[in-house]
Amino acid sequence: MIGARLVEDMTDAERARAQRVESVLPALREAAEEADRTATFPPSHVSLLRDAGLLGLVVPEKFGGLGGTLRDLAAATFAMGTACPSTALAYFFHNTSASRGLLPLEAIEAGLFSDDEIPVVRAFAEKVLTRMADGVWLANFASESVKTAKANITIATTARSVDGGWILQGEKSFGCATGVADYYLTSAKLEGYDTAEGLATFFVPRDAAGVSTRAPWDGLGMRATANNGIRLDEVFIPHDEALAVPGAFTKMLTMSRGSFVGNQLAIAAVYTGCAQRVYDETLAATTRKTFADTGAPIASSPVHQVLIGEMTRQLQTAYLWLRYQLGIETVEPPVKPKQEVFTQWRLGKGAVTEACFQVALGGLKAGGTSAASMSGVAGRALRDLAMGLVMTFPAERGLLEVARVITDAKANELFAPAPHIPDSNTADAQAPAPEVAR
Amino acid sequence: MIGARLVEDMTDAERARAQRVESVLPALREAAEEADRTATFPPSHVSLLRDAGLLGLVVPEKFGGLGGTLRDLAAATFAMGTACPSTALAYFFHNTSASRGLLPLEAIEAGLFSDDEIPVVRAFAEKVLTRMADGVWLANFASESVKTAKANITIATTARSVDGGWILQGEKSFGCATGVADYYLTSAKLEGYDTAEGLATFFVPRDAAGVSTRAPWDGLGMRATANNGIRLDEVFIPHDEALAVPGAFTKMLTMSRGSFVGNQLAIAAVYTGCAQRVYDETLAATTRKTFADTGAPIASSPVHQVLIGEMTRQLQTAYLWLRYQLGIETVEPPVKPKQEVFTQWRLGKGAVTEACFQVALGGLKAGGTSAASMSGVAGRALRDLAMGLVMTFPAERGLLEVARVITDAKANELFAPAPHIPDSNTADAQAPAPEVAR
Amino acid sequence: MIGARLVEDMTDAERARAQRVESVLPALREAAEEADRTATFPPSHVSLLRDAGLLGLVVPEKFGGLGGTLRDLAAATFAMGTACPSTALAYFFHNTSASRGLLPLEAIEAGLFSDDEIPVVRAFAEKVLTRMADGVWLANFASESVKTAKANITIATTARSVDGGWILQGEKSFGCATGVADYYLTSAKLEGYDTAEGLATFFVPRDAAGVSTRAPWDGLGMRATANNGIRLDEVFIPHDEALAVPGAFTKMLTMSRGSFVGNQLAIAAVYTGCAQRVYDETLAATTRKTFADTGAPIASSPVHQVLIGEMTRQLQTAYLWLRYQLGIETVEPPVKPKQEVFTQWRLGKGAVTEACFQVALGGLKAGGTSAASMSGVAGRALRDLAMGLVMTFPAERGLLEVARVITDAKANELFAPAPHIPDSNTADAQAPAPEVAR
Amino acid sequence: MIGARLVEDMTDAERARAQRVESVLPALREAAEEADRTATFPPSHVSLLRDAGLLGLVVPEKFGGLGGTLRDLAAATFAMGTACPSTALAYFFHNTSASRGLLPLEAIEAGLFSDDEIPVVRAFAEKVLTRMADGVWLANFASESVKTAKANITIATTARSVDGGWILQGEKSFGCATGVADYYLTSAKLEGYDTAEGLATFFVPRDAAGVSTRAPWDGLGMRATANNGIRLDEVFIPHDEALAVPGAFTKMLTMSRGSFVGNQLAIAAVYTGCAQRVYDETLAATTRKTFADTGAPIASSPVHQVLIGEMTRQLQTAYLWLRYQLGIETVEPPVKPKQEVFTQWRLGKGAVTEACFQVALGGLKAGGTSAASMSGVAGRALRDLAMGLVMTFPAERGLLEVARVITDAKANELFAPAPHIPDSNTADAQAPAPEVAR
Repeated sequence: MIGARLVEDMTDAERARAQRVESVLPALREAAEEADRTATFPPSHVSLLRDAGLLGLVVPEKFGGLGGTLRDLAAATFAMGTACPSTALAYFFHNTSASRGLLPLEAIEAGLFSDDEIPVVRAFAEKVLTRMADGVWLANFASESVKTAKANITIATTARSVDGGWILQGEKSFGCATGVADYYLTSAKLEGYDTAEGLATFFVPRDAAGVSTRAPWDGLGMRATANNGIRLDEVFIPHDEALAVPGAFTKMLTMSRGSFVGNQLAIAAVYTGCAQRVYDETLAATTRKTFADTGAPIASSPVHQVLIGEMTRQLQTAYLWLRYQLGIETVEPPVKPKQEVFTQWRLGKGAVTEACFQVALGGLKAGGTSAASMSGVAGRALRDLAMGLVMTFPAERGLLEVARVITDAKANELFAPAPHIPDSNTADAQAPAPEVAR
Repeated sequence: MIGARLVEDMTDAERARAQRVESVLPALREAAEEADRTATFPPSHVSLLRDAGLLGLVVPEKFGGLGGTLRDLAAATFAMGTACPSTALAYFFHNTSASRGLLPLEAIEAGLFSDDEIPVVRAFAEKVLTRMADGVWLANFASESVKTAKANITIATTARSVDGGWILQGEKSFGCATGVADYYLTSAKLEGYDTAEGLATFFVPRDAAGVSTRAPWDGLGMRATANNGIRLDEVFIPHDEALAVPGAFTKMLTMSRGSFVGNQLAIAAVYTGCAQRVYDETLAATTRKTFADTGAPIASSPVHQVLIGEMTRQLQTAYLWLRYQLGIETVEPPVKPKQEVFTQWRLGKGAVTEACFQVALGGLKAGGTSAASMSGVAGRALRDLAMGLVMTFPAERGLLEVARVITDAKANELFAPAPHIPDSNTADAQAPAPEVAR
Repeated sequence: MIGARLVEDMTDAERARAQRVESVLPALREAAEEADRTATFPPSHVSLLRDAGLLGLVVPEKFGGLGGTLRDLAAATFAMGTACPSTALAYFFHNTSASRGLLPLEAIEAGLFSDDEIPVVRAFAEKVLTRMADGVWLANFASESVKTAKANITIATTARSVDGGWILQGEKSFGCATGVADYYLTSAKLEGYDTAEGLATFFVPRDAAGVSTRAPWDGLGMRATANNGIRLDEVFIPHDEALAVPGAFTKMLTMSRGSFVGNQLAIAAVYTGCAQRVYDETLAATTRKTFADTGAPIASSPVHQVLIGEMTRQLQTAYLWLRYQLGIETVEPPVKPKQEVFTQWRLGKGAVTEACFQVALGGLKAGGTSAASMSGVAGRALRDLAMGLVMTFPAERGLLEVARVITDAKANELFAPAPHIPDSNTADAQAPAPEVAR
Repeated sequence: MIGARLVEDMTDAERARAQRVESVLPALREAAEEADRTATFPPSHVSLLRDAGLLGLVVPEKFGGLGGTLRDLAAATFAMGTACPSTALAYFFHNTSASRGLLPLEAIEAGLFSDDEIPVVRAFAEKVLTRMADGVWLANFASESVKTAKANITIATTARSVDGGWILQGEKSFGCATGVADYYLTSAKLEGYDTAEGLATFFVPRDAAGVSTRAPWDGLGMRATANNGIRLDEVFIPHDEALAVPGAFTKMLTMSRGSFVGNQLAIAAVYTGCAQRVYDETLAATTRKTFADTGAPIASSPVHQVLIGEMTRQLQTAYLWLRYQLGIETVEPPVKPKQEVFTQWRLGKGAVTEACFQVALGGLKAGGTSAASMSGVAGRALRDLAMGLVMTFPAERGLLEVARVITDAKANELFAPAPHIPDSNTADAQAPAPEVAR
């Protein structure tokens, strides 16, 4: 059970779900190299995962899903990451759509919606969840092209009210499963709003009129994610395929356990799976291959000992940050305030991905020039893991953000006894990355 | 409850024991600077800790102790490390003596001793534990001067049989609480043996004839540990103050959960406490002090943001390795084979202490030249934490050892299906560091 | 004059030669991306460089060349590295062939050959040089597949004496300009020899009977070098196209200034050129592009300031090691013993290539996901510079070798006053990498 | 000739001067440990250096000095750094006083002073130089207590005009040779000015009325520099012992070759000398001491090989940055614009001192706990080199400053063709560190 390397204390139910993941790994592994070479998400993977029941992994059983949690998701993306990191990432983004169902329902429970809002919110939320459980693949999008100094992500796509629904206009720059997913779960800004209050969510059918796929993305790594992004040109979406209640988005976010960044550790789990794979392959290759003169394994040379020792340390470092984050985001009852869960991850994301990248570098060096090919495990891992360094934000940004949160909090503590909500949190709330919310 | 920063899931009983530790911290903190300056273990600390009942912290209640475990010990040494790292280290070594009582008793339970051996083994073991519970301070020694290429530690001290007991001859180069402890729990090699089978343990009274204190050790850091070491010149020890049953030592070691290095993480906890202290002080100082022109806290400058972000990351890194190690060494039932617990620590020791040292460096830089004094928190932490880098073994050695274990195991796996016990383990068993066993 | 960034004190003659290099850069830059994508050495580059007179760059004027030195070569490969690192590398290997002409002539001068050997040695040496000056492209090969623990490179290709010449049999695993060069300058072991005494050199015409090209090498980076390698299956080479005087090879090596590794810094210059390019592009892109909200350049964000500061430091580090090495390998009269020039480079190779790779990583992070494509400057540089990490040997190996040389020398110094030639040098001499000799 | 390790191309005249330095090293080395222990600048060192003629090392021969340049100074402080870093640093500060004579004279030559200003400027300048040549020790001060966000150093000491001279009031927080130097060359702000225009320089006799020594500075390292700092309480200085011409200071600075930071590399040379010493001692100790079981030198163990390889790399890194900086600050004619010399050093200072510190850490680890004492070479070097990390500015600050200069310049380049003088330079000019000017 590969996922148990990450989630060491799996329950029986978790093991049963992990078994489904295990069953698809050979097919993913088989297709990985060609998928990377051609930069194509293998279309067969949709039915593969659907047939294994995995599209509903984190959907509660009452909506027809498998009832998994973030623990299952992390174990799954980790395990898939050892086979095909691209598929693992696309699968992650599908699963994170569940937040669009789960968090609104929690917000209803918490009394955040008015009586007249509740039915429409509930209907949309349950539609998200039941579709997933029914085997519908939902894509969503991580970013747009516009950059602002204050926020990580800025939403410029607009939704204009028309008779019977909404007209969407805009462009989404990244998003796995473009042209593959059944629906694109899309955020847009309602006309007349310029804060996060006006953010709404829409089911955009893959083949709806006005939807077009952007030019193929020729990524350095994670190439088989179908990450092109889409253009929305006067796309009509009927009312019942939208959640356009003003404020719904921000209310939903308040329910997120780890602030809106919850779930994101399951992306880092993809990279850790990838790193574990290149580590295993490096060990296997260098212990199997021997020196012609001495007959000793290549791995026994002093330089390989140095490289392998360092790779081991780096891999362990990735696990430690990841497992700890998983713990504080899933333990019941919660033991850390949301703010601390958030800052821990601002450090953790960079720590995990940098460590994983170092494992790939070690593998590259241990293999020498002959292993440094575009298509081998070492070369692919290096490229895939390089993407991890820049995805969402680089480690350097996380460090600076955490420093700001900590020093602001500390400075405030000196002058004001009231609990402090750092600016960065506000900035996030104003320019959220909806697709990574939980 | 400072210790709860490390051990986040304390039980009520653990909290109660931690409260005793908490009560002595102000006195330790008060004395720390002078103790460092004069390189003197404050004699008053013995009664301070004894009166708080802390000398029996990890002794089972049935022998009169507080019934704590390694979790308590780590929380205690961590908390003391924030106040006076030297005292924390000396206290650690006292506590680790409990292994000389606990492990033999476990070995008896496991049927490793013959019927005629059992009474003498049990008597000695219980004497260790009851003395600790009664407030007797037991010192022990980490190394001797002779170095060998194969082992970390080599025992050259000898025990010669004489009428009524043994004559010890030798020198111990490091060992906290020299001249302070009531007894030195001392390992020596029985004459006629040249393997670990012949290792025996003796209670050497501090003031016994023939015992002398070596010249003061003018350490770079951890100066107030009374770490001089002793000379044993024809020291007589009666039979009932010795455990000289051949093989007792190696049998005892087989009971250790984390191989003989168990408990050692509580040393790393000392350094982590020290790092937490310098981190806290740095934050306090740089948020309190402001620039004369802008009025902004020093901490808000770009360079301080970089330093604080990095210090935060390093401190978290130390915690992660330490908590994980504590988990795998204490969780019931055990989840990792002894070999894995061992290799994890070979990495972890270096990872924790290097990370802690980086925190000290960050504190030094954040404070500038005016804080770079011998006696301030930053200067003391830098020196104390530099000792952590070299204590037991440097990080680089741990990496190489782990690489060897892993690649040997892997290479064997290719050729032989039988479970493999790496050489390094054997080497350790032959030249153990008894004082750090559990 | 791009090359002057590396060689800051160019003479007028050097500037004139560098001007020729400058003239070909636009064409190289134009073709680089497609060449990388298709993993093809652009055939037009041969005539481009030939027409610019550059194939004789380091051939003395008396043999029809331009009379350049290692300083010219490094400036050239650096400048080409900013445009197309693959071409720069292939061009390097052509130029290093000149050593096969220059060093034997120096060895004749030094009286190392007997009177009857001199004519055949001189004829071969002059043939190498005049062919190069005449615009003939000479390829050579860096390694074979067999690995030994003692040597970096092992020669297993054999030469069997037959009537009128020699029959070559073997395989060469790496070598730029496969299928492109006019001749492969090939090392083989004469039958009956098993030391470096028996190494001989042959002109193997590209289209000779029995010569075949190995399967295309799908490299991670440096893909447009035509680095496939060749197979030699009973290839006949006449006497006058061979230098088969026993001992010629080792005599030649004794004339090399920086031990046989001389010239190699011009490979590191390729990577440094590549790093300079990605640095320039990163600065241009991040200062040109602005934040939508503040209008400030992206480069002004705290995280970009951190990245750019670090990239600058790393780039400078590469230059410093490279320029220093160039200085000690070219200054007249020599100021360092050969041994020191050698060890300096064992450190320097790793230092330069690791620093360059860090520049590429910084560029990747500064560009974010949108710049992390296979074909953009950041993505290509990352892949090309990753090859630098493993080419010849990784940094970790260099460090260990230097440590051995230094500690052996030091240990010997303690016991023996005689000058010491470390083992590693012997190992090199016994298993040389002829293609990188000067 | 130890200094020749740094300045590899010494002229004969430089060698002759270096010989004087060589002659005092044994005495410095002899006194170093005790000086560190007691934190006392050995009073005998003043006459030692004076008698060797070294107080006029960088004073032109026409003023009675030895006619050395920055090359001599760096070679000297490096060599002394191998013996007693504290003395080397104090000696550096004495020598840098020469700038207060040399730069004004250059400014007069450049026509920056009016005819009526010239005599008073020249008189003061020549007094500085002739006093140094005559064996007078001049101290000066690096900083005051007030910190501002904009500048590295802020001058708050004031000079009030009174009959016959000036009254100084203020405090200087750091400055070598407190209580030892014959005069303190002191900067103060003339009343009525609040820019660098109003900065004036005064000869303050050590024993003048109103001058007091601050409490001893109990530094972490560099303890024997007598770095207490002074208080000036209504200290009267007559006109002819002052250079109070408004604008003299800024005019002087414009003549400095490497911006006001010129000479500073000679401080880094102190640290590099210290690092070379700990490197040499580590090699000597680990090759001399052997393992008891194998008889092999300690240095041959895998972990020592790793440590020594890394130490060698770090030490070389320090040399490379230092030699390059020395080159661009001394080569005639100058090859780099002042701005580039400045930014190079903002990187270089950090690069040298961080590398040196890593050498010390390697030495510490190679020596193990027994070498980790307060007084041994490894312990002292660690403490002394830790001071190098924070002195003037930490490496992190240099990186950020360089990033700002580069990106500002680049951004301006896009919009404005005019040559750009970055803000940071202005900031420096407004809040200069006069004592480090050249």
